[in-house]
Amino acid sequence: MQIQWEHRYAQRTQRMKGSAIRELLKLTEDPEIISFAGGMPAPEVFPTQEFAEACAHTLSTHSTLALQYGTTEGYLPLRELIAEFSARTGLTLSPDNILITSGSQQALDLLGKIFINRGDRILVESPTYLGAIQAWNAYGAEYISVRSDENGMCTAELEAALRCGPKFIYAMPTFQNPSGCTMVLERRRQLVELAERYGVPIVEDDPYGQLRFEGAHLPAVIKLDDEIHENSGSYTGNVIYLSTFSKILAPGIRLAWVIAPREVIRKLVQAKQGSDLNTSTFNQIIAHEVSRDGFLERHIQKIIACYRERRAVILDSLDEFMPAEVRWSRPQGGLFLWMTLPEHLSTTAIFPECVAEKVAFVPGQSFYPTGGGENTMRLNFSYSDPARIVTGIERMARVIRRHL
Amino acid sequence: MQIQWEHRYAQRTQRMKGSAIRELLKLTEDPEIISFAGGMPAPEVFPTQEFAEACAHTLSTHSTLALQYGTTEGYLPLRELIAEFSARTGLTLSPDNILITSGSQQALDLLGKIFINRGDRILVESPTYLGAIQAWNAYGAEYISVRSDENGMCTAELEAALRCGPKFIYAMPTFQNPSGCTMVLERRRQLVELAERYGVPIVEDDPYGQLRFEGAHLPAVIKLDDEIHENSGSYTGNVIYLSTFSKILAPGIRLAWVIAPREVIRKLVQAKQGSDLNTSTFNQIIAHEVSRDGFLERHIQKIIACYRERRAVILDSLDEFMPAEVRWSRPQGGLFLWMTLPEHLSTTAIFPECVAEKVAFVPGQSFYPTGGGENTMRLNFSYSDPARIVTGIERMARVIRRHL
Repeated sequence: MQIQWEHRYAQRTQRMKGSAIRELLKLTEDPEIISFAGGMPAPEVFPTQEFAEACAHTLSTHSTLALQYGTTEGYLPLRELIAEFSARTGLTLSPDNILITSGSQQALDLLGKIFINRGDRILVESPTYLGAIQAWNAYGAEYISVRSDENGMCTAELEAALRCGPKFIYAMPTFQNPSGCTMVLERRRQLVELAERYGVPIVEDDPYGQLRFEGAHLPAVIKLDDEIHENSGSYTGNVIYLSTFSKILAPGIRLAWVIAPREVIRKLVQAKQGSDLNTSTFNQIIAHEVSRDGFLERHIQKIIACYRERRAVILDSLDEFMPAEVRWSRPQGGLFLWMTLPEHLSTTAIFPECVAEKVAFVPGQSFYPTGGGENTMRLNFSYSDPARIVTGIERMARVIRRHL
Repeated sequence: MQIQWEHRYAQRTQRMKGSAIRELLKLTEDPEIISFAGGMPAPEVFPTQEFAEACAHTLSTHSTLALQYGTTEGYLPLRELIAEFSARTGLTLSPDNILITSGSQQALDLLGKIFINRGDRILVESPTYLGAIQAWNAYGAEYISVRSDENGMCTAELEAALRCGPKFIYAMPTFQNPSGCTMVLERRRQLVELAERYGVPIVEDDPYGQLRFEGAHLPAVIKLDDEIHENSGSYTGNVIYLSTFSKILAPGIRLAWVIAPREVIRKLVQAKQGSDLNTSTFNQIIAHEVSRDGFLERHIQKIIACYRERRAVILDSLDEFMPAEVRWSRPQGGLFLWMTLPEHLSTTAIFPECVAEKVAFVPGQSFYPTGGGENTMRLNFSYSDPARIVTGIERMARVIRRHL
């Protein structure tokens, strides 16, 4: 009897559509297309030589450890390195506060696994990061949106949303994906205070926080939360913090980390055992080798210099080529900016025309789980080199002009 | 308000206890303990030199590809290599039949994600692989057990179990974990025929099939199933087949693969996008570099030679030291054998005494999701070197004798 696979799949797969963005990115794989659509780091800043040295060293000195199964929690020296890295910002952590994951996407998945019952509501920014929605749809999440503006999540609207009883708050306060915006200090404090008052956990996703081109560093939400909780060498607050090596070393090694109270880490470890046993020990040891002795801090400066230039180029090109009716954000760091067309224009509608002109972006609609954003788009400026950025923006402006 | 994390966790976490085995393995980390408890490959056969060369080559020739994000399906040349590897056994595959996963544990998790609704029953062998239970408990699976003997799953009892309407059949037909037993050819055919008749998919888990020390190679269940389905360059049958590089290269790179009809692969890809975006491109390229040009086939012979010797040593030691009342399997391959004590003896009860004597195993009870096996244990013979195997079995026999 031929199996009718469609009838066998679990109910949850109905919301597992495969990301529209990924389908769209496939359209943009043509190397002639200048793509502002992805979220990829510049390959020019991959520390290739350092990786080569770390591989050679690791395989000649501790190959048995690197090639064998490892602990689910992650390679202890790497967790200690992350604890030291966090201590620079004043956040005291024990290695028990840290779990290494196979990219932040796995952290999002594991959070869904341990927290979300079908029908649970998650409080998200609007727009919000699509990968989180994709991870949590599989667990039957529903969403409550809180509007964001150029100063990040509008905390004035947060309390009303908290009264709807969300399971947790998901926020990317610094150089947000997709908007590029950063939540100002006062709102960060309000977020922490309201979460504390309502007893609701915050998931702070911070993949880009290290990549600031200008302006003063802002404390992470977890840091502000830590200040109002007891910390005797271990974090005990309300925030679950995610960050990653994807943007500061390389995404191809699939390494990220979660910082959370020990109890939450223990539960995540149980979930991770069933999900993939452990993250590649080989990659963890290599990443530790590459990062240690201050390399990571020096390398971040190199990435910042590269992206700062690309951001300047994209902003100059937008100024030069875009019609006056178009507006965009001026991010102080990260990989993305956010563009808004006049209300009657749909970025989804002009997308095919742009692809025909060999330029691509992500229509903003995808980032609104509860609807909206038809006239917006996300532009990545980290991946393409300056010359291609100029040409790409010129092409896109030509298409937009036609529709005005 | 201090968060009561315990009250926030999803219902599914109640069955996510953290593997008892992993807790137990932690007890055996003392290097003085001779452990037959894990499932680790011999570090002596890791192809360290080949990894070092592959890393150097990859980082000097295609570092941009290796360090960047990759496709969710997996690195195409590696999928092609797996297709060729499978073609040697007469199974014709398209790369679209193959998904690369972050270890087979991820494949088990993704199968749970796309197939299991809460309360769905999965038909398993008794005993069965604990990692599968751990993965599927998170999706609310229930289990129907079919007894196994030294010839594998007792297919005479399969039809009655199929009438209970399982979502799929899970089997490890070759050198099973935990029992070390192999399903004979006639039962493999019966399994395929009954699955076909009832329209129930088979998940064939085959991590050790390549590691045969003696006896004739048996066709994989997927191969027998392929013979009764159309194959014009692509597999279209009822089997989802899992295998891994963990036992034939190294587990530290976390690389495994799924073979399935294209439609199932597409659904798994959607699930994997939300779970971890993609498996490490770096590791995939390294594994491809190491494996190609026939290295994998040659290396498997080296592993077989090592494990064949260790199996001979453990069998000789058992013959020499164990009391007459104790029985054990004589596996023709793989990493494990299965030992049965007299019925009144509980292996869980004698475990602490063994650890005190500096020797460890896994009590068999853990492998029976529907109960039983109190007087059984799993012994791994791949990890410890021959001298330690002899000493370990002698110690264990001493403890068992005390209880007879």
